[in-house]
This record gives sequence, C-alpha cells and structure tokens, in this order.
Amino acid sequence: KKKLGQDDSRRIIHSLKFGLALTLVSLIYYFEPLYKGFGNSAIWAILTVIMVFEFSVGATLGRGLNRGLATLVAWALGFGAHYLASLAGEKGEPILLGLSIFLVAGVVTFVQFFPQLKARYDYSLLIFMLTFCLVSISGYREDEILEMAHQRVSTILIGSSTSVFICLFVFPVWAGDDLHNLVASSLEKLGSFLEGFGVEYFKIPGDSKESNNTFMDDYKSVLNSKQSEECLANFARWEPCHGQFRFRHPWKQYLRIGSLTRQCAYRIEPLNGYSTLRSSGINCLQILAEFRSKIQEASTNMSLESGKALKELASAIKAMTPPSSVTPHIVKSKDAANDLISLLRSGFCKEIDLLEVIPAVTKIAESINELASLAHFRSVEPMVEAEKPKLLHQETNPPCCGVNEPHHVITIDQLSPKLP
Amino acid sequence: KKKLGQDDSRRIIHSLKFGLALTLVSLIYYFEPLYKGFGNSAIWAILTVIMVFEFSVGATLGRGLNRGLATLVAWALGFGAHYLASLAGEKGEPILLGLSIFLVAGVVTFVQFFPQLKARYDYSLLIFMLTFCLVSISGYREDEILEMAHQRVSTILIGSSTSVFICLFVFPVWAGDDLHNLVASSLEKLGSFLEGFGVEYFKIPGDSKESNNTFMDDYKSVLNSKQSEECLANFARWEPCHGQFRFRHPWKQYLRIGSLTRQCAYRIEPLNGYSTLRSSGINCLQILAEFRSKIQEASTNMSLESGKALKELASAIKAMTPPSSVTPHIVKSKDAANDLISLLRSGFCKEIDLLEVIPAVTKIAESINELASLAHFRSVEPMVEAEKPKLLHQETNPPCCGVNEPHHVITIDQLSPKLP
Repeated sequence: KKKLGQDDSRRIIHSLKFGLALTLVSLIYYFEPLYKGFGNSAIWAILTVIMVFEFSVGATLGRGLNRGLATLVAWALGFGAHYLASLAGEKGEPILLGLSIFLVAGVVTFVQFFPQLKARYDYSLLIFMLTFCLVSISGYREDEILEMAHQRVSTILIGSSTSVFICLFVFPVWAGDDLHNLVASSLEKLGSFLEGFGVEYFKIPGDSKESNNTFMDDYKSVLNSKQSEECLANFARWEPCHGQFRFRHPWKQYLRIGSLTRQCAYRIEPLNGYSTLRSSGINCLQILAEFRSKIQEASTNMSLESGKALKELASAIKAMTPPSSVTPHIVKSKDAANDLISLLRSGFCKEIDLLEVIPAVTKIAESINELASLAHFRSVEPMVEAEKPKLLHQETNPPCCGVNEPHHVITIDQLSPKLP
Repeated sequence: KKKLGQDDSRRIIHSLKFGLALTLVSLIYYFEPLYKGFGNSAIWAILTVIMVFEFSVGATLGRGLNRGLATLVAWALGFGAHYLASLAGEKGEPILLGLSIFLVAGVVTFVQFFPQLKARYDYSLLIFMLTFCLVSISGYREDEILEMAHQRVSTILIGSSTSVFICLFVFPVWAGDDLHNLVASSLEKLGSFLEGFGVEYFKIPGDSKESNNTFMDDYKSVLNSKQSEECLANFARWEPCHGQFRFRHPWKQYLRIGSLTRQCAYRIEPLNGYSTLRSSGINCLQILAEFRSKIQEASTNMSLESGKALKELASAIKAMTPPSSVTPHIVKSKDAANDLISLLRSGFCKEIDLLEVIPAVTKIAESINELASLAHFRSVEPMVEAEKPKLLHQETNPPCCGVNEPHHVITIDQLSPKLP
C-alpha cells in the first residue's frame, strides 16, 4: 500500500479530494435551512458526487455534462410519458407506463452495444434510463411532481458543480497531460531498447560482466497500451485550455502516433526473443561466425541510431518542439541499413528484422511532424518541417542503385511495410 | 443498426430481457398493497436492476453477490458510525459523521487504485461507499432507521433476485462459453494466417489471379485481446456448472493460453509485413532469386504444418478433447524447419522469422495439454498426453548433429525463445 502511494502521490491527493467533495455535499444534511429546502432529495447530491467525481479533470467534466444533459432529456421524456399515460385513464395508465419503460430500457440497452457510443455515452445512457424510470413511475404516485423535479435538479446541480469545482481547482489532474506523457514515454522505452539491443546482441558470450538490462523489458508495456490511450483521449476532449494545451488540441493525432508506436513494438518483440537467446548462451549468429565481425558495426549503428531517433522524437513531444534534430539519426540509420544490405547480399540475413524497425520509426517521425503542425508546436517554419521526411527519401535513394539492379538490391525504403 | 443485430441476435434478446426485468420490478408501484409495504424505497428495486443486470450470467451473479455483501457491510458500518456519532451530543454528531465520511471515502477511493482489487471489487466498493453515506447520514435525519433498513434491504433483494432469475433462466449467456470460444477462435485465426502465408509469400509476382486473402488480416484482433479475455475470465469465475463446464473450471489456464497466443501473434505481425510487401510487388527474396526454389518447399511446409497444428489445437479446445492429433503436425513442421536450417546454412536467412513461430506453437500445445488435464477433457490417458511434447523434443534432436558441430548448426529447439 505504501509503495503505491510513493509511486504516485497524485492518487493520495485524489482520495483526499474525493473525501472533501463528499463531506462538503453532506453538509446539506446538517444545516436545518438547507435540509428543509431539499428534503429527501438531498441524497441525490451525494449520489451525483459519487457518480461524477473522477480522477482527471476531463473525465469529471465529461461525466458532469453528460449527467446534466441526460437528466434533462430524461425528465422531458419522462414527463411526456407520464402525461400521455395519465390520459389513458386509471386502468390504462400502468399498462402504458410499463410499455414505455420496456421500450426505453430495451432501446437504450441495445444502443450500448455500439462500441463508439458505448465509449462516449455509456454513463449518459445509464443516467438517462435511471431518470426516465424514476420520473415516469414517481409521477404515478406523487402529485407534486414539479416540486420534486425542482428539488432533484437543484441537488444534482449542487453535486455536479461541487465535483467539477474541486476537481478543477484543487491540484487538478489533466487527462491530456497524461496522454501526452504516455505517448512520449512509450517512444522513449522503444528507443532505450534499440539503443541497448546492438550492444547486447553482439556481446561475446563468455563475457562475465552482468549487464543491467532490466530496461530491455520496459517496452513490453507498449504492446498493450491501446485501451488506456483511447480512454485518456476520450477524456482529454472535454478539457479546457490548460498549460501548453489549447481546448481543441489534436488529441486524435496522439492516438495515431500511439498506434504506430505499437506497430513498431510488435516488430521489436521478436528481436527481444533473440536477445533472450543471447543471454542464455545461444547465438543465432554462431551459424556464420565469419560474418559476425563484418556486420557488427553496421548492425550496432543501425540499432543505435534508430533508438536515438525514437528518443529524439520522444523528447520533441515532451518539449513540444518540432523534431528537427531527428532527421540526422534517421539518415544515419538508413545509411547503416543500406551498408548492411550490401554486406548481406551474399551472406547471412538475420538482421532484416532489425531493418524492419526503421520504416516504422520513419512513419512515427512523419506522424509527429504532423502533430507538430496541427498543434502549432513552437517552430520557425512548420510547413518545411512537415515536408522533410519526403526530401529524406529522395536523398537516400541515389546511393543504392535500385534502378539498375532491380533484382539484386533492395533499399530500406522499399522494405517499408505498408502500415495500416 | 440492423447489421449489428444480425451479427449477434443475443444482443437483441439481452435488450428484451433487460426491459422485462425493469418492467417486472416497476410493478411494485402499480399494486397498492406492495407500494404500501415499501413506500419510497421502491425506487431502490429499480436502481438495483439497472446496476446489477449484465450481459452474461457470470457478470450478473458477480454483481448481485457483490452488491448484497457490500450493502450488508456498509449498513453495519454505517449503523456503527451513526451510533458512535450520536454519543457525541448534538454539536459533535455532525463533525464526527463528516469525519467518518471523509475517512471512508478517502480509503475506498485509494483502494480502487490497486489494479487487482479494482478489477474484481470496483462495483462493490462503489455500492459500499454509497450505502455507507446514505445510512450514516440518513440516520441523522430519520428516526425510524431500522424500518427504513428493512424496506431498503427487501427492495434490493427483490431487484437482485429478479435480475439473477431472468439472466439465469431466460436464454442465458455464459461468460465461460464466450471465453472458451474466444481463445479457440484466436488460435484458429493464427492458424489460417500461417496456412495461407506460405502460398502468398512464394506466389509469382506477375500472377494475375487475385487471391482472396482477407482472412490474412483476421489475426490482428488477437493482438489486443488481453483485456476482453481477462474480463470474461473474471465473470466466468462466478458461473455455476453449465454445459460442459464445471463450477471451478480452470479459467486461469485459458488466460495463459491466450497470453501465449498473443506472443505467437506478435511473432506473426512482422511476417504480415513481408506478405504486404509481396502484394505490392516487392519480394525480399528477389535479392537471392537462386535460393528461392531451394527453400520454397521447406518454408511452405513449415508454415502450413504449424498453421495446421494451431487449427488442430483450436478444434481440440472447441471439442474439449486432448489435442492428440496435433503432435504429427508439430513434428512435420520441425522437420521442415530443420531442413530449412541446413539449406540456409550458406544462404539467405530470411525465414528464421518463420522458424520463431514454431516454438511459440509448441508452447501453446503444452499449455493446452495442461488445460486438458486440469479440466478433465474426455481422454483415455491424460497423463501420457501431457508428457508427449517432451518426448517430441528428444525425438527431433538426433537428426541435427547439434553436439558435433556446436558452432554451425542450430536446431529448432535451441531457437525456442524463453517466453515470459
């Protein structure tokens, strides 16, 4: 329990904030004049805080707005159903009410099966259904339905605004910041892996120095980051301008970068298999020991430079500057890759796996350039930056005489897999 | 909207079931004697149905039990807090109550940050907090707290039992069945990919026949199956004996198989990159066209046989029989792999990626044998089945003279990556 708290003091603060919001709202009960005004409806303020208060500002705002809208729509519809049913006379009323509840519950439940609607409006739909049932049924038993509506709406407003206020002004946690950092740290983890991989892979087996390669497993968390990224992006949409982020910051571009980063991680996963083999004393390269020294320099360079490129991209995102210094690393790693390809023409071709990583890195770089121009990162000429990758392709093609020997030479650009 | 319904008629049935449960519970309002007994607490029956009713039996049972337990514990604690606070006199009572709410809310919120507790008891913790607040605070205002408790508990019981009854007896949907099918279909998708891969990869570029390789992308869903598998396994734990499944069916073993299947999918992902290259007219093998005919047969066999092995494993799971007919395929694919390795000794080594798939398949087979013995699949001698993979290793080693030429030959068993 203690360790978790050290990991993230934000969690303790969040717990305290939630306790504070709930205690504030429960004050309604202790002050006679307030309680007289609201009566039993005071419970709805507590219910609202429990359902609306979330970890990040975006989630709380989204829930608060959804809750408000859903409640209003449900009240309107519920009143309508109640009014129509009351026209049907004493015997018809329960039947009509029952039918309307059956209909609304069925439709709302079915709508929740659409993944997109579920992700965004899950909570609204729940509240809508709950409120509709309460309004249409309560109307059957309680005569002062308008009085009740007034009490309910005020308590729900009190609950929502308390939650939003505390979440927004007491040590706010921004989902946007979290998404921004998550995407950057994913890139950094892959970068660290690639930087270390070359050295690990070519280490002499008998070497007794135990390398501290725990960071080599960090990248594994990237493989399953999809859901948390989508969740954060959904929340971030609701957040107002804060820090370096505008209201309509291009959060979708982060999802695109995240997805490309996962593609890159999938390509790295088999590489990790080799390095595990290495540490258990079996080296695939032992088959062709004579090639080892030939390709060592090129492979290590390629891995190191693409790792550096990824790390540059990560720090460009963190600092919110266009990733201008990344192109030299990509050029260098492509050069190393082309060197390697010519070395391998007659030889052992294990490193093609590593070659696959570079197109993935290039795609990520292009995507981050796009983000830089969408989000107006501080840059001198954003349009020029965004076009650089294309120039790069033209620059690196000539050294490999791809046109003259189409069947014997492949360039690294041709290797680029069509990422979906 | 229509298409989704055709995809899964279970969803429409679920919507109707939910509507039915809600309508049944709302009957409390229409019958005078029932309403007199419960009064305003009747709303809690509706609230309970909305919160407890879920798609699968396991989820509903789990929620119902959690809801019941959490409510009881919260009532006990709430009474305690109310009693202690009332000892403190009129002025001390609100302060003590406020403190206790602050404390409970803070601790419960913090506990939710533990991922394991969150996955299992998220809902219980919410209900606990809600009920605790209601009881301790309501006690401050209402004198007949025991009468209210009686009403509440009965309505919650009515809501829970209605939900569980309808979910269990009207077209039940079992989370266990879904998990079982999901794991089997993941294996099948990978198998289809591998079966088709060899042919796709060695197809002559100019071939005008458009292959219907849409199934080649099916495996992509396996990459992100982690969360849904864990979710289903959590629900399946609650389900009673049904169909071929006992109450304590080894659901955790499914998670292990699922995780190994994902490992295999990560290894297949780069292969897909090549086949995309292929369809865009670029063939890595063009570098060394002369090797093509040499390795074609071995590679295609290897891919085909490991695909068949995976499909055998999938149908063994589906039929709940021990996967006895899978070993020949693994033997054949290992033989093909060893052939390929000797062919490649002096040549082009692109296919090592494909070689990596086989150890992953072997691991999956071992894991499914374990499931077969844990879950008592109908088998003649389950212990013998479970040991077969080890025998297999010994049988395939001799042909490759691994001892005499340690630096020039690797066997497929040595390639086996240490899967985490």
